[in-house]
Amino acid sequence: MSTVSLDRTAPTDAPVLDVLAARWSPRAYDGSAHLDDGKLASALEAARWSPSAYNNQPWRFIVARRGSETHAAIAETLIDFNAVWAPSAGALVVAIAELESDAGRTFATAHYDLGQAVAHFSVQAHHDGLFVHQMTGFDAPAVHARFDLPDRFEVVTLLAVGELGDPDQLPESARERERAPRERRPIAETVILDD
Amino acid sequence: MSTVSLDRTAPTDAPVLDVLAARWSPRAYDGSAHLDDGKLASALEAARWSPSAYNNQPWRFIVARRGSETHAAIAETLIDFNAVWAPSAGALVVAIAELESDAGRTFATAHYDLGQAVAHFSVQAHHDGLFVHQMTGFDAPAVHARFDLPDRFEVVTLLAVGELGDPDQLPESARERERAPRERRPIAETVILDD
Repeated sequence: MSTVSLDRTAPTDAPVLDVLAARWSPRAYDGSAHLDDGKLASALEAARWSPSAYNNQPWRFIVARRGSETHAAIAETLIDFNAVWAPSAGALVVAIAELESDAGRTFATAHYDLGQAVAHFSVQAHHDGLFVHQMTGFDAPAVHARFDLPDRFEVVTLLAVGELGDPDQLPESARERERAPRERRPIAETVILDD
Repeated sequence: MSTVSLDRTAPTDAPVLDVLAARWSPRAYDGSAHLDDGKLASALEAARWSPSAYNNQPWRFIVARRGSETHAAIAETLIDFNAVWAPSAGALVVAIAELESDAGRTFATAHYDLGQAVAHFSVQAHHDGLFVHQMTGFDAPAVHARFDLPDRFEVVTLLAVGELGDPDQLPESARERERAPRERRPIAETVILDD
């Protein structure tokens, strides 16, 4: 078990579930912690029960645990900034959108639905003490090719999943970000409310 | 307060947070229930703290409470099947993706990030006793035009948000769906696990 603990709870302007306020995306992962199979199964099960347009469930996941050949192949596609920290996580998980069905029916909200499934995954993971950091900084077409995915699938993001590590082990650039205040624009700039 | 209660908890194959397993998308809403401002604020705040690529937060929401002119304008754009039930919800919320920044920088994962924000919204709402049903069955370009949105924004989904109503008030076609078993494909068809 990791002994590292950072309180990164969001300074919310309205009450929000602890698991939603406390969830954040670290870069310091414990490179010696084994990913618990049960927690991984729960996170994937949470994703499974996510809603989607017409219940199409247009998502797939490749789970690559640290130490596997799959993990090494995926880690090779990371951009330099992510390559220094992401491989230490217990697993790298590829999040894939299904753009159309086997029969050629378009799933117009595939990316949107995939995002929801990953959100459910990350909320469950956080509840179970696992941290999730989503990335676009990797060679998605290379991952697509490596796994011989049909064209109707698109590799969208890569998730680092695992237990928290020591921020002091990170390179300086990443270390600073790890402790920077969490920020969002004010809600008034996001919402148009009827009057 | 609504007195209707249906246990629609998902039959999960692995332990999942109650709020994730119990969340579902109804069509029977209580057309007399007033939407609680505090609960609405909490759901929007949960969306606000959702993760996004480079913290771009490429999402906007239009909140139209039942009874407002905005609500009437949006309800007019619903397809017939949704028009019979969705306007009874306490609010219709338009979920909007920001495809590029004001300065023209592309937000490649705008739909994906919007999906995450809506997932956080719906999880918080469900925790607070509000139900969320996301729809694509409405005239999104008409909503875009009605609110004079710039081209860099795309109207993606519409959310019915409110308290549960009596399924027997629904037209027969919708009533059957309200009680149909909740189903997802087996997780083995979704995940490729390293060996």
